[in-house]
Amino acid sequence: MPELRLDPDRLFPVDAISRDLARRLYAEVRDAPIISPHGHTDPAWFASNTKFVNATELLLVPDHYVLRMLHSQGIPLEALGVAPRGEVSTVDPRKSWRLFASNFHLFRGTPSRLWMDHVLSVVFGISERLDASTADSIYDTITAALQTDAFRPRAILDRFNVAFLATTEGALDPLTHHDTIIAAGWGQRVVTTFRPDDVIDASRTDFASNINHLGKLTGEDTGKWQGYLAALRDRRAFFKMHGATATDHGHPTARTEDLSTLDAENLFAKCLAGTATSLEQDIFRGQMLVEMAVMSLDDRLVMQLHPGASRNHNPALFDRFGSDKGADIPSPTTYVDALKPLLDRVGNEPDFRMIVFTLDESTYARELAPLAGHYPCLTLGPPWWFHDSPEGMMRFRRQVTETAGFYNTAGFNDDTRALLSIPARHDLARRMDSRFLAELVAEGRLDADEAFELIHDLTVNLVRKAYKLDQVAPKGAMAAE
Amino acid sequence: MPELRLDPDRLFPVDAISRDLARRLYAEVRDAPIISPHGHTDPAWFASNTKFVNATELLLVPDHYVLRMLHSQGIPLEALGVAPRGEVSTVDPRKSWRLFASNFHLFRGTPSRLWMDHVLSVVFGISERLDASTADSIYDTITAALQTDAFRPRAILDRFNVAFLATTEGALDPLTHHDTIIAAGWGQRVVTTFRPDDVIDASRTDFASNINHLGKLTGEDTGKWQGYLAALRDRRAFFKMHGATATDHGHPTARTEDLSTLDAENLFAKCLAGTATSLEQDIFRGQMLVEMAVMSLDDRLVMQLHPGASRNHNPALFDRFGSDKGADIPSPTTYVDALKPLLDRVGNEPDFRMIVFTLDESTYARELAPLAGHYPCLTLGPPWWFHDSPEGMMRFRRQVTETAGFYNTAGFNDDTRALLSIPARHDLARRMDSRFLAELVAEGRLDADEAFELIHDLTVNLVRKAYKLDQVAPKGAMAAE
Amino acid sequence: MPELRLDPDRLFPVDAISRDLARRLYAEVRDAPIISPHGHTDPAWFASNTKFVNATELLLVPDHYVLRMLHSQGIPLEALGVAPRGEVSTVDPRKSWRLFASNFHLFRGTPSRLWMDHVLSVVFGISERLDASTADSIYDTITAALQTDAFRPRAILDRFNVAFLATTEGALDPLTHHDTIIAAGWGQRVVTTFRPDDVIDASRTDFASNINHLGKLTGEDTGKWQGYLAALRDRRAFFKMHGATATDHGHPTARTEDLSTLDAENLFAKCLAGTATSLEQDIFRGQMLVEMAVMSLDDRLVMQLHPGASRNHNPALFDRFGSDKGADIPSPTTYVDALKPLLDRVGNEPDFRMIVFTLDESTYARELAPLAGHYPCLTLGPPWWFHDSPEGMMRFRRQVTETAGFYNTAGFNDDTRALLSIPARHDLARRMDSRFLAELVAEGRLDADEAFELIHDLTVNLVRKAYKLDQVAPKGAMAAE
Repeated sequence: MPELRLDPDRLFPVDAISRDLARRLYAEVRDAPIISPHGHTDPAWFASNTKFVNATELLLVPDHYVLRMLHSQGIPLEALGVAPRGEVSTVDPRKSWRLFASNFHLFRGTPSRLWMDHVLSVVFGISERLDASTADSIYDTITAALQTDAFRPRAILDRFNVAFLATTEGALDPLTHHDTIIAAGWGQRVVTTFRPDDVIDASRTDFASNINHLGKLTGEDTGKWQGYLAALRDRRAFFKMHGATATDHGHPTARTEDLSTLDAENLFAKCLAGTATSLEQDIFRGQMLVEMAVMSLDDRLVMQLHPGASRNHNPALFDRFGSDKGADIPSPTTYVDALKPLLDRVGNEPDFRMIVFTLDESTYARELAPLAGHYPCLTLGPPWWFHDSPEGMMRFRRQVTETAGFYNTAGFNDDTRALLSIPARHDLARRMDSRFLAELVAEGRLDADEAFELIHDLTVNLVRKAYKLDQVAPKGAMAAE
Repeated sequence: MPELRLDPDRLFPVDAISRDLARRLYAEVRDAPIISPHGHTDPAWFASNTKFVNATELLLVPDHYVLRMLHSQGIPLEALGVAPRGEVSTVDPRKSWRLFASNFHLFRGTPSRLWMDHVLSVVFGISERLDASTADSIYDTITAALQTDAFRPRAILDRFNVAFLATTEGALDPLTHHDTIIAAGWGQRVVTTFRPDDVIDASRTDFASNINHLGKLTGEDTGKWQGYLAALRDRRAFFKMHGATATDHGHPTARTEDLSTLDAENLFAKCLAGTATSLEQDIFRGQMLVEMAVMSLDDRLVMQLHPGASRNHNPALFDRFGSDKGADIPSPTTYVDALKPLLDRVGNEPDFRMIVFTLDESTYARELAPLAGHYPCLTLGPPWWFHDSPEGMMRFRRQVTETAGFYNTAGFNDDTRALLSIPARHDLARRMDSRFLAELVAEGRLDADEAFELIHDLTVNLVRKAYKLDQVAPKGAMAAE
Repeated sequence: MPELRLDPDRLFPVDAISRDLARRLYAEVRDAPIISPHGHTDPAWFASNTKFVNATELLLVPDHYVLRMLHSQGIPLEALGVAPRGEVSTVDPRKSWRLFASNFHLFRGTPSRLWMDHVLSVVFGISERLDASTADSIYDTITAALQTDAFRPRAILDRFNVAFLATTEGALDPLTHHDTIIAAGWGQRVVTTFRPDDVIDASRTDFASNINHLGKLTGEDTGKWQGYLAALRDRRAFFKMHGATATDHGHPTARTEDLSTLDAENLFAKCLAGTATSLEQDIFRGQMLVEMAVMSLDDRLVMQLHPGASRNHNPALFDRFGSDKGADIPSPTTYVDALKPLLDRVGNEPDFRMIVFTLDESTYARELAPLAGHYPCLTLGPPWWFHDSPEGMMRFRRQVTETAGFYNTAGFNDDTRALLSIPARHDLARRMDSRFLAELVAEGRLDADEAFELIHDLTVNLVRKAYKLDQVAPKGAMAAE
């Protein structure tokens, strides 16, 4: 039976000098509190705090990285326990798990493999490598553990020292789960994030009805431009009351626009009437980024921009299973011209902060590091999604640091839907940062005492600063540190 | 006199732990059979099995990598033995060889140098480094060896354990060399590939006459859209009878289109009449990729796409010497939108397979790995042409593996016109794969037993699967393994 | 108090074998003369040879890398001693220095840090790391040193063995400083470079007045196309008389055009009349690159192209402080189609040389290495500006060498406005080249004797060849070597 043994030095450099440095740097932050300012865990978990049911529902079905890879090798999503839209899976979850286990070799060399091994070993204490021969025993071990209170969602946050966790909700979300979380005394620790794509993206088929809904929620006349803006301000305040320190924007491009009020009004009217072209819808999204930036000046919410995913690239899969099943593909994205209208408008405002992410690594050294290395308002988010991986992190640090330095970056985001991958991902990021710093020291490019200061900055201090956690966020959570 | 000594540990990592791992991994596959599913060697060699004449004709004149570099330093192609179009070189081949040898330092740091050193040392047993002082003796050694039966083309395939070799022929090729190869009992081992660019690319001046020729070859009315498609089906079957397991498509872009039958008919008529614009010709090429994909569903030929070369960039050179002289330059290429019409049409068909290559490395992590990591039909070809090199291979593995894994890649292609570079290129690829796996193991990112399984997959198993060699290809060749 | 100690092995590989090789290679060129064929130091320094005033004016105010980073963290440029346009700074330079020192941690991991440490340690003999606690003593040490003759500009060139230094002046510059330099007997060593952007870029508000000025300077009728070209020829000759061996062109894109004379005449007339669109201005710049190339065929000046910076991206900052304050951002740049008109016209001329730079690293392996690896006229400039850094240099060598080799590259440029960073930057480049070669040798990819030849080529010989210094440039300077 294959052994599962995590190398305590995994991801560190191989040469003895750098490895020793990396070990010592990592030891500094291995047990530091986890601050997770951006992600997609389900607030219902923390509201209800009910137990997870089995290994498949916890670790396989919600993980679009895993589903994607298995699908790429011809394995039907149904067989993995994914239900078609509007249906409930009728597949035996143990059988789905066996299928996953039998194909676990497909993940060799991927971060999914590293995360899953971490979860199995560290979270569940499993010492056998997942494959067909160990599938059942591992399934049983996990599923049994999940029946215990130690594996309820809040206990997991406690166990892994998650001091701060932001979920992400759409603008129309009533935030009832967050109400429950607050009522339970967890509001200092689990907060929401305002993600208004559903009321900004006029290419959505439900755009007009969403705007109508927005009006009802806020009592504003969202059929008019000014009422629409007022309603958005209202929702931002509502999210802020639920702990939000940030907004998030998932646009196809980084386009921004700064239209005259009259042009914006007219464009909004066309979007609402459903007569806007694709180009006009794109301009409207761009205009709304500037509107959101201006609102951020007032309410101080940090603005996050996650552009450049071509969503639901496989229409047949989307029709059958819906979104977030691994069929989103990055596309070329540029920032220099795209962000200029926004930067011209608010780029020199001292109270504005924008955290920019990318799926197009060719922009790291060419555009993003120079922009963040000049504009006070810009901070670079960590390597995102497909690039949240050992090689992705090294490319980010190597391509960004020389121009933007460390202090224009925002620490780590796990950005995950998979609760148990949170500690795994933060551990991986801490190891890679330790490695990068160790290599700089070993090559005489950084003094050792600076590296020991930086590892704390990269792990804790920069993320707190970037997301204004010391100003806005609950002190309670931070006290854990 | 400078020594030529191949370091037995060349291309392996320098640190002792990783180097030892790389050595052991490489030892597993050093002598594995060579499977070469895509290349441009001349089938006449294997048909006639006649001897090569001298070092210059074998190693210098056909190698556009070498010609390119020498030309870049102002050395005229004529002096290297390249004849202008329609002429025969009158330059003494020994003088051309001396010129090459005197400039061999230009290749420092390039894969051409590594390949050439491998050929000189391993194939010809030469122990002196090529330069002006050794030019004559090396020329004599090589030219003398070529007069022996051991250096006839088929003997070379035997000596280097080439179990399977695909050449590439245009759609109108009568495949008479392959007939001879089959008659000689080598049809299991040397096969053709269907490359229909000459009857698909309407920007060619000979397009209409090629279509006319296609009609005569097949008895179809190729002046009509349906007859044209029928003729292409006919030629695909003809190539398949000559051992083809794949088609190949060398387009300027990865554009695909899925027009209505009526629109396709009209576009074909314009292309044939010579009235299509450049844009329409591009759309037609895109449409034909989808037509080819649909035909692949029927006849199961694997589809290869090699896009993104700006061919014959230097018109003066092209006018004088023709194509394939080192003046093809890669250009920016994108895939996410470009492949969508094809993927929407056949991307979810379980029996369709498409192997995609790129010359634009910025697409590895951004587009190709995510696409191949989702669509079951897509497999990534190895680093191609300018990137078939140590650094190119490391960039490929590092940028692709974390998202696509190993099992959505297709093993190695040598893609060469230079017969003797085949063993050199495969050896280099095996060394680099051993290195990559060794580094993963040394860094605790992969278990050692998995690396020992993977090195066989990367060398033999993935290429057989990708090109359907176990299903379609001759068993004889495979038995050599 | 923190220690400043430059690791003698800084930037070398960590493993003992490669490190030893790198040390030995570096020892070969550590003290080689500095040849600086492209940069932006002020010729007034070398003409007047007056002392620098204080640390702030020498090291802080002119360094847009440093200003950029400090500005990105919200530090106002005024506080750093930068005066608004038309004003003189009233800030105590010591206070500006303290502000810089207190924020020196922001530069961790950047080349600015490495350069500044080199300057402090090697040039000024300082042994304490710059921070708030050492700011004053370091300021005093530097400022005191600057009062001595040993720190006059020419003494600095002598001390650091700067054998050749090119400054860069606009087409209308009277070159009076260079007259003084020549009169002082330094004309063999400090020369100008012809940079005609101000009379070629019709998007400038002063374009028409510049053309008028050009006419007055040359006695040509610059209101007419032929007179304009004649005037440019005249200025090129004037610059050549002042030692220029090269021209330089800083365009937004690499676009070139080869219009008919009639079309060029008409376009020039529109540009001059101020009625040209942005697109027409871009076409005009492209046309002028071809005109400049044709003139280079006659006067043999080497043509440098530095494309792809989006200049003055922050209009508020530009309005207040002017250009070169760290607000220039690279943008995507392509070469394959852009350079084709120029290459079609003069690309095969044996006497034409063009050195191409890029800020878009995605073009290294995809476009620039293949172009330079084919066209005899093309040479690749070193990694530029944001990429003049350890990681940037490694990316350049790793992505360029396998296709273009070493011999289609142009050695190192410091391209700096900061006089004392010249020895620091050349030292860094020599270390990185030693490192790259050491790694090739350690991995069996290059013979050791070749590396020892190459390190001299990369440091001295290639730059002399690329800029035709042995043909055109003063022999005196070279004799220093």
